[in-house]
Amino acid sequence: MTHVPDEGMVLVPGGTLITATPEEGRALAITLARHTVHNLQPGLEILRAGRARYGEDPMGLIAAAQVVALEFATVAAANGYWR
Amino acid sequence: MTHVPDEGMVLVPGGTLITATPEEGRALAITLARHTVHNLQPGLEILRAGRARYGEDPMGLIAAAQVVALEFATVAAANGYWR
Amino acid sequence: MTHVPDEGMVLVPGGTLITATPEEGRALAITLARHTVHNLQPGLEILRAGRARYGEDPMGLIAAAQVVALEFATVAAANGYWR
Amino acid sequence: MTHVPDEGMVLVPGGTLITATPEEGRALAITLARHTVHNLQPGLEILRAGRARYGEDPMGLIAAAQVVALEFATVAAANGYWR
Amino acid sequence: MTHVPDEGMVLVPGGTLITATPEEGRALAITLARHTVHNLQPGLEILRAGRARYGEDPMGLIAAAQVVALEFATVAAANGYWR
Amino acid sequence: MTHVPDEGMVLVPGGTLITATPEEGRALAITLARHTVHNLQPGLEILRAGRARYGEDPMGLIAAAQVVALEFATVAAANGYWR
Repeated sequence: MTHVPDEGMVLVPGGTLITATPEEGRALAITLARHTVHNLQPGLEILRAGRARYGEDPMGLIAAAQVVALEFATVAAANGYWR
Repeated sequence: MTHVPDEGMVLVPGGTLITATPEEGRALAITLARHTVHNLQPGLEILRAGRARYGEDPMGLIAAAQVVALEFATVAAANGYWR
Repeated sequence: MTHVPDEGMVLVPGGTLITATPEEGRALAITLARHTVHNLQPGLEILRAGRARYGEDPMGLIAAAQVVALEFATVAAANGYWR
Repeated sequence: MTHVPDEGMVLVPGGTLITATPEEGRALAITLARHTVHNLQPGLEILRAGRARYGEDPMGLIAAAQVVALEFATVAAANGYWR
Repeated sequence: MTHVPDEGMVLVPGGTLITATPEEGRALAITLARHTVHNLQPGLEILRAGRARYGEDPMGLIAAAQVVALEFATVAAANGYWR
Repeated sequence: MTHVPDEGMVLVPGGTLITATPEEGRALAITLARHTVHNLQPGLEILRAGRARYGEDPMGLIAAAQVVALEFATVAAANGYWR
């Protein structure tokens, strides 16, 4: 089994929730969600097979988008909503 | 595979969560959700096929509406609820 | 295909999250959820067929009630919980 | 079709989110969720058949408990968490 | 049908969301979720059969853990996060 | 049946939501979710079988990532988002 590279296992890349812009905050939210999944399942082959499956399933994409929305809510609040 | 156009890949179009009105904030929430999906699955043909499927499935529409509700909660709070 | 009437496409009817009472806020939450669905699927026949299906499925009703709960959380906070 | 009685259609019975105790707030959360469902599906026979189905399905009960948790979060915050 | 004992029907055992420690707050969150289910389905035999089913189903356990996470968010906020 | 070891049953290991860094907060969120599951299902063999199943199912991984996102929202708020 090939393992997710070490940098993909860091739970909060950069070590902070603070970002310069909402765009970067959104990217962080997606990364947070992905790295959680890496920690739950570090096998690269299984992850790739799973990504192919949910990526073609609208319910899978919607469920993943929901996780991103939840992560972004936290990141946005941490940044005072970038006002 | 045709790729989602570049502007559809921007995670936070306009670069801010601040909008003039609740109506615009709601539209932003829908856009945020859609552009997340574009980043998870940038293949236009797959996206169109998926949209046709979930768009006729009440559970798919309800799940998508849930993501919009979550995104809107963040946008609305960022705008001080437009009070 | 018959299209949802224009007023059903407005994302935030009335243009504000502020309501006089919790009862009106709750009604707004239901409307917000419904109008999201109209924007995701503007075909009236498809919507009516879908409503017939989820309306007789307890899991569909519970999922819809969850969206309403999420929308209401935002509306209620916007109104300072009507204290 | 027998229709849910009028009092079951009121979205916020009592017209306020403020309650004397957490116990009453929790009961209100359950009522809010139930009355949403009544408004989405006012047919008593369909509701009773659905309740029998989800009430014996652990996933149905968990999904319903999730809606109650979301409603309670709003009620509890409205009450300053009854501190 | 055997009915859940009276103490299992109390929605907020102890009548308060305030606890001495995070550990007790977490236990309260689990209890809140369980007692909601008791109120939705007070039949002990049905509950026991359901618990056996979802307890061996990873999706059931994850769904239940999600409800606990939601309840805990409310309890933790009520306690000022025990800071 | 082999039982989850005692330390795996503690609901809030360390007894606090406060952590030194976001990375530690994220790890705590994953632990909170896991220990909830241990309390709902303390049988090690059942847990291991379930982990093998959801770990290869993209929908299972996404659902678990959603629970982590919810727990992290609470932990992050407790820590003032580590600003």
